[in-house]
Amino acid sequence: MEKYQKELDEFFKTKGWDYWPPLVVLARLFEEGGELARLVNHLYGEKKKKDGEKEQELEGEIGDILFTLICLANSTGINLDNAIRKTLDKVAVRDKDRFGKNARSE
Amino acid sequence: MEKYQKELDEFFKTKGWDYWPPLVVLARLFEEGGELARLVNHLYGEKKKKDGEKEQELEGEIGDILFTLICLANSTGINLDNAIRKTLDKVAVRDKDRFGKNARSE
Amino acid sequence: MEKYQKELDEFFKTKGWDYWPPLVVLARLFEEGGELARLVNHLYGEKKKKDGEKEQELEGEIGDILFTLICLANSTGINLDNAIRKTLDKVAVRDKDRFGKNARSE
Amino acid sequence: MEKYQKELDEFFKTKGWDYWPPLVVLARLFEEGGELARLVNHLYGEKKKKDGEKEQELEGEIGDILFTLICLANSTGINLDNAIRKTLDKVAVRDKDRFGKNARSE
Repeated sequence: MEKYQKELDEFFKTKGWDYWPPLVVLARLFEEGGELARLVNHLYGEKKKKDGEKEQELEGEIGDILFTLICLANSTGINLDNAIRKTLDKVAVRDKDRFGKNARSE
Repeated sequence: MEKYQKELDEFFKTKGWDYWPPLVVLARLFEEGGELARLVNHLYGEKKKKDGEKEQELEGEIGDILFTLICLANSTGINLDNAIRKTLDKVAVRDKDRFGKNARSE
Repeated sequence: MEKYQKELDEFFKTKGWDYWPPLVVLARLFEEGGELARLVNHLYGEKKKKDGEKEQELEGEIGDILFTLICLANSTGINLDNAIRKTLDKVAVRDKDRFGKNARSE
Repeated sequence: MEKYQKELDEFFKTKGWDYWPPLVVLARLFEEGGELARLVNHLYGEKKKKDGEKEQELEGEIGDILFTLICLANSTGINLDNAIRKTLDKVAVRDKDRFGKNARSE
C-alpha cells in the first residue's frame, strides 16, 4: 500500500491540497460504504441478480473505500501495510487458539 | 412509534409482502445511513454550504432510516417505543453518575 | 416522535447541554449502526444462533440509533413525525406504480 | 495488495475455510467501520483528546477494515490493485476538469 500512499501524498502536494479532517473522511467512508451496501444488496441480496455491469461496479466501489482509507491514513500518519499485517497476524494467531476454545469468539 | 409500526404492518399484510431478512435490512440501513452522510457532509462538512433545498432533503433521508428501522423492528418483534424509552432512561441515569465519575465514559 | 423530541430537548435544556455538531452525531450513528450490525450478524448471520439474551440487546441497539436520530433532528430543526410520514407515503405511492413499471426500481 | 490477497487465500485454503457470503462481510464492514467511527470521534470529535494509546488503535481499526475488504474481494474475484488504480485515476482526471467546471461536483 505504501506506493499508493506516497502517490496520493505527492498528488496532494502538487495540487496544494490538504487532507480533509478525520470526521469528514469518516462521513465519506460511511457514504462510500453505503454505496457498496446498495450494490451488494442488489447483487447478493434477497433476489440475487446476475448482472455483469453491476459486478464491474463492485471494483469501483471497493476502490473508493480504499481511497478514503488512504486519505485517512495519510492525514493521521498511519502505514497501511503495517495495518494489514497487524490484522492478518491477529487472525492467524486467533486461529491457533481455535482448538483450545471457541473458534469464532471475538 | 406504535402507530407507524402498525400502519406498515397492515400495509405489508394488505400487499402480501414479507419483510426482508435482517441482513438485507441491515445493508439497507448502511445504504440509507450513507446517503445521510453524504448530505451531512455537504451541509455541515469542510465547506459548509447554506442550501435550503438540501436542508429539506435531510428530513427525507432521516425518514428513510426510520422506515428501515421500523421494518427491522416489525420483522423481529421489537416495540420501538420501548426501545426509545430504554435509551432515554439510560442517558438520564448515566447523567446522574456524571458528578461521581467521568461524565462521558461509555 | 414529537413527545420524545420534546422530552430530550427539555432534558438538554435542564442540563445546559448543547447538541453535538452534525458530523459528530453522524459518527455516532455510524458507531451505533455498527453495534447493531455486530448483533444482527450474530443472530441472523452465517451461523444463526438462537440467543434470547442477544435478542433483548436488539431493542437496546435500535433504541440507541433512534436516540442518535432524535439528537440530529433536534439540532437541525427536523420533525421526525413528518420525516416518517414522508417515507411511508413515498413507499405507498411507489407501490402504486409497481404494476406499471418495475416494482423495486429506486 | 495482491500479495495480501494471495496470503489470505492460501491461509483460508490451508484451513479449509470458506469466505463468508457478501451480505455477512458487508455487516462486518459496517461493524468495523463503526469501531473506527467511535475511535475517530474520541480522538478528533467534539472534545479532541490527545491520547497516544488510542492513536495506536487507529492502525488496528483501519487494518480490520482492510481485512474485511480483502475477504470481500477474494470471494467476488476482485483485484484490489486494479480497484485502487481505478479510483486514483478517477480522482486525477476529475481534477483536470476542476478549472473547467466545479471542482467538487460528483
